[in-house]
Order: sequence, then C-alpha cells, then structure tokens
Amino acid sequence: MIGSGAEHERSAEEVGRLLAERGCTVVTGGLGEVMAAAARGAKAAGGTTIGILPGERAEHANEWVDHVVVTGIGHARNLAVVASGAAVVAVGGSWGTLAEIAFARRLGRPVVILQPGWKLEGDGIAHAASPEEAVELALADLG
Amino acid sequence: MIGSGAEHERSAEEVGRLLAERGCTVVTGGLGEVMAAAARGAKAAGGTTIGILPGERAEHANEWVDHVVVTGIGHARNLAVVASGAAVVAVGGSWGTLAEIAFARRLGRPVVILQPGWKLEGDGIAHAASPEEAVELALADLG
Amino acid sequence: MIGSGAEHERSAEEVGRLLAERGCTVVTGGLGEVMAAAARGAKAAGGTTIGILPGERAEHANEWVDHVVVTGIGHARNLAVVASGAAVVAVGGSWGTLAEIAFARRLGRPVVILQPGWKLEGDGIAHAASPEEAVELALADLG
Amino acid sequence: MIGSGAEHERSAEEVGRLLAERGCTVVTGGLGEVMAAAARGAKAAGGTTIGILPGERAEHANEWVDHVVVTGIGHARNLAVVASGAAVVAVGGSWGTLAEIAFARRLGRPVVILQPGWKLEGDGIAHAASPEEAVELALADLG
Repeated sequence: MIGSGAEHERSAEEVGRLLAERGCTVVTGGLGEVMAAAARGAKAAGGTTIGILPGERAEHANEWVDHVVVTGIGHARNLAVVASGAAVVAVGGSWGTLAEIAFARRLGRPVVILQPGWKLEGDGIAHAASPEEAVELALADLG
Repeated sequence: MIGSGAEHERSAEEVGRLLAERGCTVVTGGLGEVMAAAARGAKAAGGTTIGILPGERAEHANEWVDHVVVTGIGHARNLAVVASGAAVVAVGGSWGTLAEIAFARRLGRPVVILQPGWKLEGDGIAHAASPEEAVELALADLG
Repeated sequence: MIGSGAEHERSAEEVGRLLAERGCTVVTGGLGEVMAAAARGAKAAGGTTIGILPGERAEHANEWVDHVVVTGIGHARNLAVVASGAAVVAVGGSWGTLAEIAFARRLGRPVVILQPGWKLEGDGIAHAASPEEAVELALADLG
Repeated sequence: MIGSGAEHERSAEEVGRLLAERGCTVVTGGLGEVMAAAARGAKAAGGTTIGILPGERAEHANEWVDHVVVTGIGHARNLAVVASGAAVVAVGGSWGTLAEIAFARRLGRPVVILQPGWKLEGDGIAHAASPEEAVELALADLG
C-alpha cells in the first residue's frame, strides 16, 4: 500500500483492513499518515505489517508496523516498497507515490490506483472507485 | 537528460547539443539509445557529459560519457540521475522515465517534458514542443 | 545474522535457532548458504525470519524466509540488512560481510563476530567462540 | 580516494595532487576533511574531480569538486564511490572507509591503504608508507 495525504487516511485504513482480511501481508513505507492508517487497519483485522523506512532509525516506524526494515537509502527505498509487494494499491499520493507507481510498473508489479488519485493510464494500471474495488482488483491481478 | 525510446534519439541528440552550447554539463543514465544520443550531441558541441550507471561495471557506459559514475544500485540510480541535475529534460520515456520525473519533482528539480512524452501536469512541470523550447524552458527555470 | 561460507552453515543454523528461542526475529540477506541456514534454524525453533534481497525478484529468497523484502539495490542492500537489526552476529563471511560489519558500526549497531571470522578490533565489536556465546553477547548488547 | 580524519588531510591532499599529475580523475565522497583535501590537491595540479554525495543537495559538495553527483541514498553512496574508481586509495578512515574498502574488494577493485590506516590483509589489498608509494601501487594495479 502506497500513498500520502491526510485526507485519504480513512480509505487507507480500509484498504489495510481488507487486505489483511484476505490474508495479505501489508507492506508500506512505515511512516505516518496513510502509511500508518493502512497498517492500523491491517492490525485491526489481525494481519501482519511490514514498514520499509527511508532513514536509519527503527524508532521512526509507526506503532502498527510488526516488522521494521531500516534501509538508510532515503527516497530510493520507494523502489524497495513496491518491489516487495506482489501487487500495489495507491491511495492518494503526491510525487513520491508517482515514483512508486512508476517503479512498480517498471518491475512488472500490477498497480491499482484508488480514486481520487493519479490520473495515470498504462498497461498494468487499474483504477478503483472504492477500497473494496481496489482490493478486489489487486487480488485479481495476482490470480 | 532522461528518457528512452529509439524513435526519440534525434530529439535527444539535439537536446544534448543545445545544452552543451549553453554551457551545461549533460547528465544521463549513461547507457544506450536516447542516453547515448544526448551524450553524443553534447560532445559534438564540445560539452562535458556524465553517465550514472545502474550496474557495477564502467564498461557499460556509452562512448560519449566523459565521467562514468558506477552506482551498483539498479533502478534506484534513477534518483541519483535527476538529483544530480539542476533541471531535468525528459525525452520520450517509459516507466523508468516517469519514476525520474516524479523523483525530480519530489526533490524540487524543475522538469521539462519534450512532447510527445508523458502527459503529466503538476507544479514545476513544463511541456515543450521542440528541443529548442525544452532547453529554453529548462534554463529559464534555473534563472 | 550476516555472513557467508558453506563451511559455516552449521554454526549459522545454530545461531538462528538460539536467536529464535530467545524471541528475536532473525533478519538476513535472504539468499543461500549461511543466510538460508540461519533462517532454517530460526524456523525450526518456531521463530520469525526476514530476508532482505539484493535483486528484484522475491522468488530468489530461500524457503525459510517468512517475509521477503525485495530491494533492487544490489550490494547496497547490505546497509539495509544491518540497519534493520538491533544487533548483528557475523558468521564466517568475506568482503560483503566486512562491509556489513562496517556499516553496522557506522550506524551504531553492536556486532558480534563468531570465530573463525574477521579479525577485526574496534569499539562495539565483540568476538565469540561459540554460537551460544555469540547470541549471549548480542543480547547483552541490547540490554 | 576514500578516508576520513582531519589529521590525514595533508596526506590526502598529496594523494590527490599525485593522482592528478598522473592524469587520473579523482573521485571522492564530495564532503569535507580528507575528501576536500584530496580534491584540493587534484585541482592544484590541474586535475579533474568528482564528488559523490550521500544527501540530496549539490550545495553540500566542497568547492574543489568539478562534477557533483547527488545520490540521495545516504551511506549506500559509499558503494558508488568505490565502484566509480578503477582503483581505490584509502587515507585514514573509520567505519565508513572500512565499508568502502570491503565494497571495493567485493567488486574487484584494487585497494591501497596508506598507513597509518586499517590493518587489513586480503587479496587485492596493498599497504603504502607514503602518498607517493600509494599512488604508485594504485597505478601499478591498473597496469
């Protein structure tokens, strides 16, 4: 789950919850806002969460991350976040999220963009109108 | 200069030439196609070129790169390519180029997209219809 | 747990087992040999394992990794491996292991080198004669 | 040229000067102390210098760097510094320098350690008693 924007936290939490209910481990960038919301949702549903941090200190992870990965490589950790997922759901998001969407496609990972979000078309990119649809599409991509 | 696509080599070479004529050092990803074309154009105009490679071997740089930087970090080197430029000109390009555009904006670097290319709108992104216009816009961004 | 060298697999498996018995999550580079042995030992003791891969494909992780992190950044993932651990135990190992020991100390993580291994002295580096002693020293470092 | 430690600046400057006199481009980590001293020495001899920075801002490079590479990947840029050199000379240095020596050997780059410095033995590692000897050994390694 990638993304940013405080106004999208409710959607992110719902995406996290639904992914966990379907048995998925939820991987995020490990920091605050939608990353924390997605992890919180996943934990509420009894799921497992991984947070892949840009900095050098595990303490910066939000409290809903079960397994903290500390990369020390700054924005380049965006590559690791999407590479570590089988499919990617984008919620809201700014430039960092766009870089993640692009890297996900570069590596062949399917991407679902929950609207409102980046208006991006391309092979392997789907758009969803609700958290439910986003999770359905992401899981469908995985066969 | 970032981008990809063999059909854009002529434009990339022209962008490289014009940047060098204006006294700019041309930084690219150091490999083939438009990266090589941009470096070739810059060298034809007596410019200086830097190639920032994803792999671990300097021999993979194209022959028009003066200074080869070997990063060993794969696609994460896209971050270094745009971070090392004062402004970014995108010629053609696929997902890797989109990741670079996004990282450039994440870091506050101005981006000029030479059309045809990514149809992306946003703060700090300009579109150009010709190599001349692309270089003018990029230099204008630098004051 | 870091290291390499097929002759050290038995020690690595024992270190993995002991760490898991003490409730530690075992983080490794996720590939074969001692990395696989440490994860195998941890799983045998009912522990949890994380593998932080250098490449772009999750399939390259060994079968005892519970949570695969795919970084795509090559040898630079060595930084992430040690940054993600609270303490580092080195078993055997060649140059890549030495880079990890150095990065661990650069980031302030305590390091225990199980002998035979790198003959390195320095602040925050301890040497152990057995897997048991290595795990004791690593846990002692964590207070 | 890698290393650290203010007390080694005079040696580093001499190494930079000698490398430039022999026609080598001097690559460093681009920051202060011995990195700045080596670049300053190289410029005094009319050489060319490259600085590969860990952060996201070109302004952090020292004033003797001709070509600034901004990586944004923190300590992982140590990999890029040594990968970008044909041979590596280490002057002084602490843990970061040791990580660079290890990465250099991991990638097959020859390393010369100017004493006093890391007491490290291994294939492809030479020790020098003076800047002159260090540069001679580094160039000899390149055939």
